Amino acid sequence: MPDYKAPLRDIRFVRDELLGYEDHYANLPGAEDATPDMVKAILEEGAKFAEQVLAPLNLSGDQEGCTRTDDGEVRTPKGFKEAYQQYVEGGWPGLSQSPEHGGQGLPESLGLSIGEMIGQANWSWSMYQGLSQGAKRTINAHGTEVQQQVYLPKLVSGEWTGTMCLTEPHCGSDLGMLRTKAEPQADGSYRISGTKIFISSGEHDMAENIVHIVLARLPDAPAGTKGISLFIVPKFLPDANGEAGERNALVCGALEHKMGIHGNATCVMNFDSATGFLIGPPNKGLNCMFTFMNVARIGTAMQGLAHAERAFQGAMSYARERLQMRSLSGPKHPEKPADPIIVHPDVRRMLLTTKAFAEGGRALMYFCSKQSDIASRSNDEAQRQEAESLLALLTPIAKGFLTETGFEAAYLGMQVYGGHGYIAEWGMEQNLRDARISTLYEGTTGIQALDLIGRKVLGSQGETLKAFTRIVHRFCKANAENEAVADLVKQLATLNKEWGEVTMKLGMAGMQNPEEVGAAAVDYLMYAGYVTLAYFWADSARVAAEKLAAGTSEENFYRGKLHTAKFYFQRILPRTRSHLAAMEAGRGSLMDIEEGEFLAEG
Amino acid sequence: MPDYKAPLRDIRFVRDELLGYEDHYANLPGAEDATPDMVKAILEEGAKFAEQVLAPLNLSGDQEGCTRTDDGEVRTPKGFKEAYQQYVEGGWPGLSQSPEHGGQGLPESLGLSIGEMIGQANWSWSMYQGLSQGAKRTINAHGTEVQQQVYLPKLVSGEWTGTMCLTEPHCGSDLGMLRTKAEPQADGSYRISGTKIFISSGEHDMAENIVHIVLARLPDAPAGTKGISLFIVPKFLPDANGEAGERNALVCGALEHKMGIHGNATCVMNFDSATGFLIGPPNKGLNCMFTFMNVARIGTAMQGLAHAERAFQGAMSYARERLQMRSLSGPKHPEKPADPIIVHPDVRRMLLTTKAFAEGGRALMYFCSKQSDIASRSNDEAQRQEAESLLALLTPIAKGFLTETGFEAAYLGMQVYGGHGYIAEWGMEQNLRDARISTLYEGTTGIQALDLIGRKVLGSQGETLKAFTRIVHRFCKANAENEAVADLVKQLATLNKEWGEVTMKLGMAGMQNPEEVGAAAVDYLMYAGYVTLAYFWADSARVAAEKLAAGTSEENFYRGKLHTAKFYFQRILPRTRSHLAAMEAGRGSLMDIEEGEFLAEG
Repeated sequence: MPDYKAPLRDIRFVRDELLGYEDHYANLPGAEDATPDMVKAILEEGAKFAEQVLAPLNLSGDQEGCTRTDDGEVRTPKGFKEAYQQYVEGGWPGLSQSPEHGGQGLPESLGLSIGEMIGQANWSWSMYQGLSQGAKRTINAHGTEVQQQVYLPKLVSGEWTGTMCLTEPHCGSDLGMLRTKAEPQADGSYRISGTKIFISSGEHDMAENIVHIVLARLPDAPAGTKGISLFIVPKFLPDANGEAGERNALVCGALEHKMGIHGNATCVMNFDSATGFLIGPPNKGLNCMFTFMNVARIGTAMQGLAHAERAFQGAMSYARERLQMRSLSGPKHPEKPADPIIVHPDVRRMLLTTKAFAEGGRALMYFCSKQSDIASRSNDEAQRQEAESLLALLTPIAKGFLTETGFEAAYLGMQVYGGHGYIAEWGMEQNLRDARISTLYEGTTGIQALDLIGRKVLGSQGETLKAFTRIVHRFCKANAENEAVADLVKQLATLNKEWGEVTMKLGMAGMQNPEEVGAAAVDYLMYAGYVTLAYFWADSARVAAEKLAAGTSEENFYRGKLHTAKFYFQRILPRTRSHLAAMEAGRGSLMDIEEGEFLAEG
Repeated sequence: MPDYKAPLRDIRFVRDELLGYEDHYANLPGAEDATPDMVKAILEEGAKFAEQVLAPLNLSGDQEGCTRTDDGEVRTPKGFKEAYQQYVEGGWPGLSQSPEHGGQGLPESLGLSIGEMIGQANWSWSMYQGLSQGAKRTINAHGTEVQQQVYLPKLVSGEWTGTMCLTEPHCGSDLGMLRTKAEPQADGSYRISGTKIFISSGEHDMAENIVHIVLARLPDAPAGTKGISLFIVPKFLPDANGEAGERNALVCGALEHKMGIHGNATCVMNFDSATGFLIGPPNKGLNCMFTFMNVARIGTAMQGLAHAERAFQGAMSYARERLQMRSLSGPKHPEKPADPIIVHPDVRRMLLTTKAFAEGGRALMYFCSKQSDIASRSNDEAQRQEAESLLALLTPIAKGFLTETGFEAAYLGMQVYGGHGYIAEWGMEQNLRDARISTLYEGTTGIQALDLIGRKVLGSQGETLKAFTRIVHRFCKANAENEAVADLVKQLATLNKEWGEVTMKLGMAGMQNPEEVGAAAVDYLMYAGYVTLAYFWADSARVAAEKLAAGTSEENFYRGKLHTAKFYFQRILPRTRSHLAAMEAGRGSLMDIEEGEFLAEG
């Protein structure tokens, strides 16, 4: 795969030109240090780390994978540990953590920009630090003061990492079935026993200690989701000095053999009367866990963007170099034995699709992280609530839609390479294998879709949806006469209205039969994603047209934005038609067939 | 992955109930032996071989892969060689080969049914025998009598296998650039020198000899595609008795490290003044090669079907067993801790999509192979010509569309498994990795699309298209009042007409600028595929409705067909709307952007 280049110019476009991050930081309480100069310096340092330290370990990490010794220790691929050391020494883990626990207190959205580059350079590696984010948030939100004092400084410094232990062999989406037990002890601690699977970064050699956040049941817990509690179960029990002390009774029982993300250790974790500490109220673990899940879902949405960006970069580089056949409109490089394949319309269709998903996805991600800043820091209650509504709506869209389109981009990125795409050394097949997990973990696309339409949209009587369609509506109204984008705005306004209408219809149908909602859910999610990205592309086009009109030395960059917006509206957005038709088909098209009628033998 | 079960019932449906194979064989010259009883017995034996011998080697073959010794010998995975032995002993390689060379002379379409099951059981293994088909065809069509006598009996018996050596490191789609040289010798043979890559089954330990069909250039050859000749280059030169004799100067230089099909040896082949024999006229190699390519493309289309069928079977088995959450309309199995996930609408959407692609794809494949029988055996010139036209049109559709939808099915088959789909032991991720090559080799989807719209449809002034749309039109007319399928027929008739109209428009636009055709090509191919499958689903529904009306003990099977047809029309066919819109967007949406405008830095 060609060298990774951090997309700093486009990050700057999205942050500063599209979403007004400079003003946003200037008005955000506690973001005083995030001056434009500081932000620029941090982004450039992050880019260097991603490009120079992490990207070179991506292919080798995939090929080497992780290994486990008989006593359950896990060795990560060559270079991973040293890279993590550098990451800790550079102070990156604490970038947007509270100064109270040793962090630098910068806005979370800045951490997300660094996370973008790190994840693009090497997704497997990035998961070792990524899982810690959720652990930190959970302890921050639900831990006692003592728990915060014991665990947060170590997690913030990066000396320790974290995990989330939810899934068991017989339950994934349906956590109500989980069986791991927690027995109370006289000293207030608990004995945790059970088997957890698919534990990313569950065991490794990169940090001194690993803090597992584990879902388990108390002895008297009610059945189902209302009887789940959350526990902190560290690999080494903190000693009196807060250092990693006695080894706890948990062990990595096996590493999963999986399709991709080979550089990350996906562990079966066996808890055998391990000492754990209740975090949050008993039996309310699932509620507390959502703190964790939302972070993880935004992180996974970022993975979708990561693979789209890598696909775009990889395909661009090959399309400009690979010589094969002549342009249909006559040779473009008669001095060469053939034209570079970027002259071919269908190669451009694939390149533009990856570009549209990567750059459109970036806009959506940074819009979300701006809302996240506001939700956690603003002093204005109404602003905070609006930001919460937008995040509630956009988190499942970002997770579901950006991972699906990220996978499509990875597919097309490979396709541009022809047969060479199938060969490991080019890295494009790794990009596809790594991308494939993103629509499965942290809630499959189907689960995101039910969360979106059921819990978020219909569950709020449409309020969360309106929080976003209102913004789109305002944009369309303001730009209806803006010649540079009027065509796009017209289409967008129609879809924005239609989105509301189809939601209303589904809500009505769902009252008769909830399966009407389930039958439409994934098509609804994809429809929502395409319309959401259309808004960001229309707005990007608006900004680009303004820059061009004002005069700029970067004409190519802004013209590229205009062309990609046009491409997106003309060739991608019509997919809403098939999703709409599928939604309108109703439950019968899926539910009328009996189980015994699927197979020839019943 | 669950055990593979050969879909004999559906094969019988497609062959006998939908496409009238019994009558077809009764009227086909030289197919006298293919009586219904004989066909049934052969299909059942083939199913047994696929299920019991090949399927058990699929996962282990993937995990073990092929290994190469320093002197270029290749060892295939454990069991592959023995399975091949059984295959040869069973007489399978000669099933539909000419009795003149030791074959059994049965119709090629019967060979295709066996090929379907073999490929589904173990795609990597099936490629060792699959590549031989093209070699046999080529020597049959273009070889001298001596060449036929020397090579065909050994290939027909399966003692020897074949390959096709086209691609070189710098040229794949653009064969005009190839450099491998052929120097004439005094004895009438040639010295072949050059490097070929991506040679499937290029070297292995399963057969006594390997017959390479190699594209190379004569010293005085014109540049480009008009200077390519075809050569037979055997691994061991046949001796006076026709047995494998002296080792030829060609060697497997390396095995490619690739995403999937690990059980098949994908070789770099080095020809170092190897002895070769011209086959067909000098400089006409590309024409001769199309004999080869068409077989290979139909074979690869079959791979699309294979992965769709495996996805469907695998996902069905998991969806009926995995318990997770309750049905949205209330518990369906209150005695269990949760309902099987087949109760959930979105799981059904995925199952029905894989089913629709697998069974619809099967109908298309068997329709093609019926045409292939007619084209090669009928005594009626008009019949033969119609069959040729249909095959010309449907080959790129089958190859392009069935591999794209086969990949989608493999994707969804994994998705049904949730996180478990990503784990190797379930086999669903192998199915996806194996499927991924199918849209790349034997001409990418983009190449198929140009072949379809450029060479086949517009190149024949629409004649090949009309050969098929006429059949669809007749069907629609005959069934317009058939209540059981009238809804489907109405939609189909509209699309069938629209297909002609959009073709006309593209033809006109292409006369102004050929890039208009290139810009629409892949969307045209997918559009064509969806309409083509709609015809087969509508006709399948007609048959099913008739069977149900007449009374049957297999109500479940036929009702399943009706429901799947309805699903296909309601939820899949609307995708034609987005492809149509993309086609109508025209070349500007792809070509207006300058190369320097794609990336931020130009």
